[in-house]
Amino acid sequence: MKLSTDSYKGVRDFYPRDKFLHDYIINTWSQVCESFGYESYNASILEPAELYKSKTSDEIVNEQTYTFEDRGGREVTLRPEMTPTVARMIAARQRELSFPLRWYSTPNCFRYERSQRGRLREFWQLNADICGIAHHDADVEVVLLAWKILTAFGATEADFEIRINDRRVFEHIFDEVGIDAGTRKSIMSLLDRRAKIDTFETELASLAGDKAKQLMQLLDTAASNPLLEDLRNRLVALGVTNIIIDTSIVRGFDYYTGMVFEVMDTAKENNRAIAGGGRYDNLLTLFDADPLPTVGFGMGDVTMKDFLEIHGLIPEYTSATDLMLCVLSDDATAFADALALKLRDTDVNVAVNYSYKKAGDQIKVADKKGIPFVICIGSKELEGDTVTIKHLGSGNQKEISTDAIADYIVTHEL
Amino acid sequence: MKLSTDSYKGVRDFYPRDKFLHDYIINTWSQVCESFGYESYNASILEPAELYKSKTSDEIVNEQTYTFEDRGGREVTLRPEMTPTVARMIAARQRELSFPLRWYSTPNCFRYERSQRGRLREFWQLNADICGIAHHDADVEVVLLAWKILTAFGATEADFEIRINDRRVFEHIFDEVGIDAGTRKSIMSLLDRRAKIDTFETELASLAGDKAKQLMQLLDTAASNPLLEDLRNRLVALGVTNIIIDTSIVRGFDYYTGMVFEVMDTAKENNRAIAGGGRYDNLLTLFDADPLPTVGFGMGDVTMKDFLEIHGLIPEYTSATDLMLCVLSDDATAFADALALKLRDTDVNVAVNYSYKKAGDQIKVADKKGIPFVICIGSKELEGDTVTIKHLGSGNQKEISTDAIADYIVTHEL
Repeated sequence: MKLSTDSYKGVRDFYPRDKFLHDYIINTWSQVCESFGYESYNASILEPAELYKSKTSDEIVNEQTYTFEDRGGREVTLRPEMTPTVARMIAARQRELSFPLRWYSTPNCFRYERSQRGRLREFWQLNADICGIAHHDADVEVVLLAWKILTAFGATEADFEIRINDRRVFEHIFDEVGIDAGTRKSIMSLLDRRAKIDTFETELASLAGDKAKQLMQLLDTAASNPLLEDLRNRLVALGVTNIIIDTSIVRGFDYYTGMVFEVMDTAKENNRAIAGGGRYDNLLTLFDADPLPTVGFGMGDVTMKDFLEIHGLIPEYTSATDLMLCVLSDDATAFADALALKLRDTDVNVAVNYSYKKAGDQIKVADKKGIPFVICIGSKELEGDTVTIKHLGSGNQKEISTDAIADYIVTHEL
Repeated sequence: MKLSTDSYKGVRDFYPRDKFLHDYIINTWSQVCESFGYESYNASILEPAELYKSKTSDEIVNEQTYTFEDRGGREVTLRPEMTPTVARMIAARQRELSFPLRWYSTPNCFRYERSQRGRLREFWQLNADICGIAHHDADVEVVLLAWKILTAFGATEADFEIRINDRRVFEHIFDEVGIDAGTRKSIMSLLDRRAKIDTFETELASLAGDKAKQLMQLLDTAASNPLLEDLRNRLVALGVTNIIIDTSIVRGFDYYTGMVFEVMDTAKENNRAIAGGGRYDNLLTLFDADPLPTVGFGMGDVTMKDFLEIHGLIPEYTSATDLMLCVLSDDATAFADALALKLRDTDVNVAVNYSYKKAGDQIKVADKKGIPFVICIGSKELEGDTVTIKHLGSGNQKEISTDAIADYIVTHEL
């Protein structure tokens, strides 16, 4: 019976060139987070299913999680998001950890959903959180961090914009208009879909009745709220000019309690959020732990890759291998092995080609793999003190002593 | 209701210091593999369940996999090992890939088993494979690579030994003694358990009858087999002196067809394999693809960490954050934010402490996190042109201009 070579539906195989781009995304996220003093953490993708039942959105838990019973009868979920895990880990050691705490991770997460552009069943997601700061300072920092990450990928401020809002502004308006608690949630959900639907006004009227008009007036003027203006002004002072107060930003998760924000791609063909987050000060209370003011955000690898493609920001592939030694006859193998071992100790990454094919065929393999330099080793090289190194990109070649190879490669690449 | 802060049983939370050590293991694996010209790849942990049903050992498939039905009725397995995945990926693109192919990955794998020392339900595993070389050269390279990885962790040759064998030696002996195909598998399995059981001789007698004595004589003299001697001699010539021919090495998986090896910890309290692999030339035939000669090995993070601990090779923790700016009053925040932003552009990783606590309390936080340098920013700093930078390890401190901070940190760390 023939086995299929297809991967499971909705997930990806990362061949070396895919892996290169994926690593580029993960490493850029990590480097910028570390430049802001964020520490890296991780956890297993397997979590007890109950972790998601109270705070993750109902749609995700009921329709989109991978949840199953293990062989011991325990209900397990493949994490659909990282926030419940980070809350669990902090709650477990709240007394030992020192605050402010800055943590980031780049986990893979799983959602059972129909595959479509920007959505896969397995995706990687940057999660960055600062905990222990109730002050606006932390809101400023997290938005700045998201902005700095986009610019680290080479994006300009024309490529994206940051839209900010504050959950407390809604609550204040709801209080003023007199909307009851149950209806608030439905209105928030409707506001979240505002840009995507045509029936916004009729749906709002059916929820808010004769209060709809006043509600919209207050929401439309909320942009001049002092909370949001202070946040925007501080970011502008730090050089973030593509920031917009947008009172239609809600964010789906129930756990947000203050500032919320989304980073939007400005490209017309990809007009959607590429990152989002906000303040959630109550998350630890699930674990009976002391409340902990927290601001954080997430950014996915699939949407990030789409963003980089649309804006021409995909980096050129470069092989991690510097040099291929092409062995031309089996009496040259020991020489090539010993030379490779010596070069590796001087930080040159060396592959040896043991196919014993013709020099031209071996060089073609190096070229196809993107390996920049080749040296052929045959009887001539065994007898003399020198080898000929060739740079495949330029066609340059030079006869040099084996001691000079490492320097030649470093210099040539400059 | 209070939620538990425990992780799922048998998996690990990686707090920043755990993550540091985990990254050290993964990065050391990766760097040495790349120095040998291996390219990084990856795939999803989710695989179609049928991928494991023919080649992975029965014990793993029937008792140890995490296998479940997804919401669409597909049977999915969390990969228990990486070899079937790499075979699937190569088979899918065999015509496009160029050989010899060197691939490595550091995936997490899952086995449902009782947690014990060195065994967890989720573990990370280095997988390195060279494909397309039927010649002994590839066997030599893979053993050399495993050896080089151990030495890159700081291990000496007294800390471990490499035991090699060859499946073809068994087959040759079985032919000579006249053991039928069905019994061969049982004898191989018995040989695999040889060192762990007291009943070896009686079990062998019940399987091989009056051929047992001749079989053992041939196995015991197999150490002088020319195949194995050539392999050992070539490795010795490359500097690998801790290599032993051991005809009791079998390796559990059915897919090996030639050389097999194990890296053993020599510490008495941890006398077990920390890596193992061999040649498997038939794996792609499952996919109806052309046979592809392949040699590879695996090495797990849990056993690796135990090995490092036993031999005193755990690296000291160092924070990725270089500097904490301690803000002493809220009029100093904008200054601290702007300074942090400037320093990050010169590759200094800077955390800002927004707690507004006393300087001493903020410095304690930096110290606890392992951040080496602190600068306090208060009204004095706002007025002058200089700040005082302090190195917490030595107690050294110096008043310098803000432009000199990056240099001071780099120089001080030398």
